[in-house]
Amino acid sequence: MNPLAMHPFDQAMRLEAAGGAQAGTWLGATSPAYGNMVGPFGGTTAATALQAILLHPDLLGQPVALTVNYAAALAAGPFRIAATPVRTNRSTQHWTVTLTQADPSGADSVAMTATAVTAVRRETWGGDELPMPDVTMDKALPRLMLSTPEWTRRYDMRVVHRMVPQAWDGRESDSLTQLWLRDDPPRALDFPALAALCDAFYPRVWLRRATRVPAGTVSITTYFHASSAALAEVGDGYLFAQARGQAFRNGFFDQSAQLWNEAGHLLATSHQVVYYKE
Amino acid sequence: MNPLAMHPFDQAMRLEAAGGAQAGTWLGATSPAYGNMVGPFGGTTAATALQAILLHPDLLGQPVALTVNYAAALAAGPFRIAATPVRTNRSTQHWTVTLTQADPSGADSVAMTATAVTAVRRETWGGDELPMPDVTMDKALPRLMLSTPEWTRRYDMRVVHRMVPQAWDGRESDSLTQLWLRDDPPRALDFPALAALCDAFYPRVWLRRATRVPAGTVSITTYFHASSAALAEVGDGYLFAQARGQAFRNGFFDQSAQLWNEAGHLLATSHQVVYYKE
Repeated sequence: MNPLAMHPFDQAMRLEAAGGAQAGTWLGATSPAYGNMVGPFGGTTAATALQAILLHPDLLGQPVALTVNYAAALAAGPFRIAATPVRTNRSTQHWTVTLTQADPSGADSVAMTATAVTAVRRETWGGDELPMPDVTMDKALPRLMLSTPEWTRRYDMRVVHRMVPQAWDGRESDSLTQLWLRDDPPRALDFPALAALCDAFYPRVWLRRATRVPAGTVSITTYFHASSAALAEVGDGYLFAQARGQAFRNGFFDQSAQLWNEAGHLLATSHQVVYYKE
Repeated sequence: MNPLAMHPFDQAMRLEAAGGAQAGTWLGATSPAYGNMVGPFGGTTAATALQAILLHPDLLGQPVALTVNYAAALAAGPFRIAATPVRTNRSTQHWTVTLTQADPSGADSVAMTATAVTAVRRETWGGDELPMPDVTMDKALPRLMLSTPEWTRRYDMRVVHRMVPQAWDGRESDSLTQLWLRDDPPRALDFPALAALCDAFYPRVWLRRATRVPAGTVSITTYFHASSAALAEVGDGYLFAQARGQAFRNGFFDQSAQLWNEAGHLLATSHQVVYYKE
């Protein structure tokens, strides 16, 4: 890669003011570098929702919570995204975000909705209750190389515990994955990148069943436990991440994920509900 | 209680069509029976967001995911709530919900936003991965009686493991609570009641620090793993519920909760991020 070129994640995050009366409406486009099986990688879409907020001139504070609902697979190409601060309090701000694309008839249709809370965070008592598993980064761990989908090639993943079934033999197991991960090429961590990393797990239902079935996230919620300064301290270091399903029932399952920095500080906790077939 | 009277939860859930061109806009009012320290119990507010969706004439399917953002403490009295199906697919539907109240100047201001996904759920392979702790309901367990806030008196809570610190001595511990709970008076379980029960935990930060500090939920996300038929089977039985914090940092902590029926089937998983001071 040309070291002077823009990082593919920064390319994916590019938003241009749509103009018009309302601040916070932007034009963007899906990024082939983060292509998924159908539409773009949902992590990039979640990051874009956050990016639309972070670029808003009225932003108060830093991200605390983000929920992204995938209403439809995004079509490859341009989209419009609007972030609105619906309520601004003394130290917290509540956001709604809507992403639309022109459907085949030319009418705008909603492909994603999001809500977020940003806040000015203050010094308080604090503590982590969920300890990082007792692991240390070992660069000798082999890198997971999947040929598809394309977005998996944008992440350097070093698997500590089961990302992909050993055999597609339909033998049931648990759905726990643990791995070290970071952007590839390496990139200094920020909130949009962290929002995307929270979605960088293989469908739990594939791992649990050792069977590939159609599956796709319908909603993801991420809580941020770090300041931008704490993310800057991570730089382009690895995060330790784990994810596990809780219940698989009638076409939907949920999973919970946690991401720590190398020193064992929890940076984000994330939850999602995923559609699956059969 | 007069057995012919309406259950207080049903009273709290009453919404009246606001009329006008748009279906899905309703008028309601906060319920003193579910009063909290400031404003009403957030569980009731979350349930009201779901109720506005469930009453909508265009509803498709049953709840899968619900995110509720508390933008401001509700004032005691009337509110307006609007539920909009922003995208309807073949088997899933995406919703946005906004609750407004007149502020002192008479202008409408947003007090709550929500998003939800409903879906027609089909028979598929399924499994619970998160087992219920090895407990059985024991009616000899003493009922937790708090004199305030008022909403706690609307729930029958039988504590298995630490709801309230033994002493307010500032001694730190973990924040795990386990209890059996159901509505009081008993009431057949439905989706709004389950959404409310997911919020029926004491602030984790109080338990963790054995210190009372100002605290309030800013956002809650609940995933539903049961059909209305499965909820009807529970009837007015107890649910086993647990909640635990994960990270407490710079004025916000998150907690994750799980609710099982007596037979050990996971009915809902729920996550929230909570503001705290000091």
